[in-house]
Amino acid sequence: MSEAPHLTFDLDKPGMSTGYLVVAEGGDCEALSLPVFSLNKGEGPRLLITGGCHGSELEGPLVARRLLEWLPEAQTCGRVIIVPVLNPPAVQASSRNTPADGLNLNRVFPGRADGSLTERIADAVSRLLLPLADTVFDLHSFGPGWEFPPAVTTLPIDDSYLMAKTIAVAEAFKLPMTLVWEHPEAPGMFDVLAHDQGKVFICAEFGGGNVTSEALAIYEAGIRNALIALGFVEGKAEYPLFRKQKSSQTLETRRSSDELKSPARGVFEPRCSVLDEVNQGDLIGILHPMESLLANAIDIRAPGRSIVYAIRSGAYVDVNEGVALVARPQNR
Amino acid sequence: MSEAPHLTFDLDKPGMSTGYLVVAEGGDCEALSLPVFSLNKGEGPRLLITGGCHGSELEGPLVARRLLEWLPEAQTCGRVIIVPVLNPPAVQASSRNTPADGLNLNRVFPGRADGSLTERIADAVSRLLLPLADTVFDLHSFGPGWEFPPAVTTLPIDDSYLMAKTIAVAEAFKLPMTLVWEHPEAPGMFDVLAHDQGKVFICAEFGGGNVTSEALAIYEAGIRNALIALGFVEGKAEYPLFRKQKSSQTLETRRSSDELKSPARGVFEPRCSVLDEVNQGDLIGILHPMESLLANAIDIRAPGRSIVYAIRSGAYVDVNEGVALVARPQNR
Repeated sequence: MSEAPHLTFDLDKPGMSTGYLVVAEGGDCEALSLPVFSLNKGEGPRLLITGGCHGSELEGPLVARRLLEWLPEAQTCGRVIIVPVLNPPAVQASSRNTPADGLNLNRVFPGRADGSLTERIADAVSRLLLPLADTVFDLHSFGPGWEFPPAVTTLPIDDSYLMAKTIAVAEAFKLPMTLVWEHPEAPGMFDVLAHDQGKVFICAEFGGGNVTSEALAIYEAGIRNALIALGFVEGKAEYPLFRKQKSSQTLETRRSSDELKSPARGVFEPRCSVLDEVNQGDLIGILHPMESLLANAIDIRAPGRSIVYAIRSGAYVDVNEGVALVARPQNR
Repeated sequence: MSEAPHLTFDLDKPGMSTGYLVVAEGGDCEALSLPVFSLNKGEGPRLLITGGCHGSELEGPLVARRLLEWLPEAQTCGRVIIVPVLNPPAVQASSRNTPADGLNLNRVFPGRADGSLTERIADAVSRLLLPLADTVFDLHSFGPGWEFPPAVTTLPIDDSYLMAKTIAVAEAFKLPMTLVWEHPEAPGMFDVLAHDQGKVFICAEFGGGNVTSEALAIYEAGIRNALIALGFVEGKAEYPLFRKQKSSQTLETRRSSDELKSPARGVFEPRCSVLDEVNQGDLIGILHPMESLLANAIDIRAPGRSIVYAIRSGAYVDVNEGVALVARPQNR
């Protein structure tokens, strides 16, 4: 029988201490050791920051590392636990899902101690780290192939007190977009487990496309703003500049009905940018069949007044592939 | 025996006419029909614009389509032949090389009539289209996974008259970067074949990362500027804004010695942006081993005074993978 998941160090030690979260071995993989950083400054709020849930989203692991350069010095109270990479085999494979079992870590929470590798990671995080925090920042990104603004997102939460508290923390990032995102695949998400325990859970969606120096600086500034709002560090929150502008808005979307799809096979041409406001009939993009002189290009137009929050990179797409996502200002 | 490559229409007809360049069938593929647009306004310069040489670079095919929206009306003289997609099977597969034979179209020029599919495409283009032009704009891009500025490039050319003429046309695009690029794999490139025939050949490298609406507008403006300089259309050339700034510089690079490589396996963090000027020792990026608390992050620093012209997106990289490319102002 394999050893149980455990932490190799005492997280209650004052100051910064480091060690590993050990995920037990199984038939599919040896034991994994996930580097963990505990920044303990005594009484105060308790935050867990995780990155690298999906191996193709490296903004989170990089921003987590950047926090470690200044947060141990700047933090004045409370405890922050940072796990830059939740799923090392997926990061090494640059793969969204875990290569060993093909599972999406963010669909198997709370996991299983005797499950496959992905389930064992979820189980170790659920049992050993989540109970130590009141608030979770899980650092994702929209991934390559899409244009997406720096954003924080939350699922809709039935508990209206927790919803309001979550939106307040989300907006404290002061990123260009805060999105309330009705996700069709919510069961098994880390978000839902945290909500069920009454915790504030912020899913950062740190952009799409390339991971650039400029984008990483925006994400780091967003987290710093939230750390100030939660009382961990002193300072003045500032809107990070996105495309050289200050911008911030809270939107809501239904993942299923707010998705525009390609009407045919061909090359998709984006004709608008993220955060563009569009009215019914405005041009979102064009589908070019390319292969024949007889097939005409097809305009893809906005179904109604909305804000484009994600748009596909120019790419060869199949019929019915998603090419744009729209949202509307949140009703409150 | 299969039919010879041919054009299905008369390109000398006045005004815009359309048809196909037929690439003969072979053992590996049926005959291909490449859509061709001929814009004939009589006497004057003769230009060939090609896109889609590499199937993972869709900026070229999209910009070529955009030209067709206004150029037939705006053109006052000469002839422009536009082939938006040179390699349809590669575009359909979103693949750099041709799936049927695994070959890179831009390494097999002038091609072979009895060769594999990629060689047959090169042969048809070399024999039927290239002779009709004095100048070629071949629209590439740096591809996903890298940050790269909107640019036009040229190989160094021994013939100093042709080199000067080429630089003059390249700079007429008024894109942020004109790059003289010593490429280690020049034999078989379309560029070299055109140079050998005394033609001006501009290889546009339309950015890296995502294909966005904003980027496509910059590329289209660059080509419009060059069309004005060549005398095809009337109007005033304008520097397209890149990151809300006007910028334009001519650089040169040696592909082999100007490449910075990853010192270890891990996650690469870009710490500068394209077109940043750096001095010896300046931080270009950081390699994070991520998997162990014992392995330290490794700084990647500039070897000398230079300009970063391409930088890798944050990504999990192997030891010795390229992560940044630098250049210097051209000596003239």
